Amino acid sequence: MPPDMSTEPVVPQPARRFDEGERQVLYDIINARRDVRNAFRPDPIDPAALRRILAAAHAAPSVGFMQPWDFLLIRDPDLRAGVHAAFLRANAEAEEMFEGDRKALYRSLKLEGILTSPLNICVTCDRTRGGKVVLGRTHNTDMDLYSTVCAVQNLWLAARAEGVGIGWVSIFRPDDLRGLLGIPDHVEIVAYLCAGYVDELYAKPELEARGWRKRLALESVIHHDGWPAPGPKPG
Amino acid sequence: MPPDMSTEPVVPQPARRFDEGERQVLYDIINARRDVRNAFRPDPIDPAALRRILAAAHAAPSVGFMQPWDFLLIRDPDLRAGVHAAFLRANAEAEEMFEGDRKALYRSLKLEGILTSPLNICVTCDRTRGGKVVLGRTHNTDMDLYSTVCAVQNLWLAARAEGVGIGWVSIFRPDDLRGLLGIPDHVEIVAYLCAGYVDELYAKPELEARGWRKRLALESVIHHDGWPAPGPKPG
Repeated sequence: MPPDMSTEPVVPQPARRFDEGERQVLYDIINARRDVRNAFRPDPIDPAALRRILAAAHAAPSVGFMQPWDFLLIRDPDLRAGVHAAFLRANAEAEEMFEGDRKALYRSLKLEGILTSPLNICVTCDRTRGGKVVLGRTHNTDMDLYSTVCAVQNLWLAARAEGVGIGWVSIFRPDDLRGLLGIPDHVEIVAYLCAGYVDELYAKPELEARGWRKRLALESVIHHDGWPAPGPKPG
Repeated sequence: MPPDMSTEPVVPQPARRFDEGERQVLYDIINARRDVRNAFRPDPIDPAALRRILAAAHAAPSVGFMQPWDFLLIRDPDLRAGVHAAFLRANAEAEEMFEGDRKALYRSLKLEGILTSPLNICVTCDRTRGGKVVLGRTHNTDMDLYSTVCAVQNLWLAARAEGVGIGWVSIFRPDDLRGLLGIPDHVEIVAYLCAGYVDELYAKPELEARGWRKRLALESVIHHDGWPAPGPKPG
C-alpha cells in the first residue's frame, strides 16, 4: 500500500438510512425522466446547476476506479451545425430501413434537439486511462464503456432534478463526430446529449405514447435461477 | 399510427419541479452509493423493496423503447457455487497481469460477494428484442447494451435508497456464466450483481481509500467545444 495512505484508516462507516419519503423522491425523479427532443428553452443552464449535474456524473461507479469519462460541452454554433448535418445524413439512411406505416411514423418523430437546446454534451470514454491492465476489465473489456454509461444515467437523473431535459442522440456516424470534435482514436464516443431547461414533458416515453412500441410488463423480464425455458417471451 | 392510440392525445404536461431539498436527496443517494464486496447481511431482501428496485431499473431509458433487459434472480446455491468458481478461475488469471506492489495490493482486495450476499442478479441484454431494425440503433449498434447499463445504474441507486448494497462482478469469462445460467447466444450478459442489506459502507470508493487509484478532479474531465489540445491529461 502506498505510504501516503498509511494515515487514512480504511474502515467502513454506518450506512446512512434513507426514509420512505426520501426513497420516493428518487423514484419520482426516475419515473419523471424523459428523453427530450423538443421544447427546450433557449436560456442557458445555470452554471452552478450544470456543475452539480456533472459532479453527479463524475460520482458514478467505474471499473477499477478508472473514471474513463470526459464531458465535452458544445456550444459553438458551427460545431453544432456540423453535428446536426451528421445527424441528418444518418437519419436519411435510417428512415429507409423502415417500411410502410413504420416509415411514416418514423418520419413524423422529432429525434434530436441539437440546435434548439442551449447546450450539447458529448460524453466519451478514454479506453487507455489507467493503463493497459485495469482491475475488473481483464475479462470483460467493455466495462469501461459501461462505467461511462453509468455516468450518463447519473447525469440524466441529476438534470431532471434540476429541471433540465436531456435528449440522447444516437443517429450519426461516430467518425463524423470524431472529426468535428477532434476526438482521438483511443477515445470512444458513448453519448451525445442535448440539454436545456424544459417546462413541459410527456407523461410517458414519447415512443410509447405515439404507439411505436409498448411498455413490457415488469414480470415478463424477471426470471429465477437462470434464463427461462423456451416459451412466450417479451416481443 | 395504430388505431388504439387514437384515444390518447400525445400532449406534454407541465414538468414537475423538484426543490432544493429533493435535489439534495438525489445527490446524497448518488454520493453514498458504493460497490459492495463484503459485509452483506445474510437476511433476504424484502420482496416489496426488491420489486421497487427492479421497477426503477425497468424505468430506465432504452433506445427505440426496446427495453432489452432481463433480470435473472439467482438464489440457487449450486448455481452460485458455479459462478463463484468461474470468478476464482478468472481472478487467478487476472492477478497474474499485475506486477510487484500492485499484484500484492490486488490480492488483498475482496472483489465479490457471490456467496455471502443473499441474492445475485444477472442483468442481460436481448439484442434481438424489437426486431432487426431498432430506432436509434441504426448507426450505433451498442445502444441496446448502453440502455441496459442505464437500467443497472437505476437499480443501483434504488438499492442504495432501500439500504441494499450492490457489488458489480466483472471478473469471469462470459461463456462460463452463459453455460451455467442457460443464456442463449443472442442475449449478452451486461452485469452480474451481488445484492444484500448493508449496515456499513466505506465513505469513499474502496479502491480510492486503499490507494489503488486517485479521484480525478472534476475540472480535468470537463472540456469546451471539442477534445482538448494535447497537454497534461488525466492519468
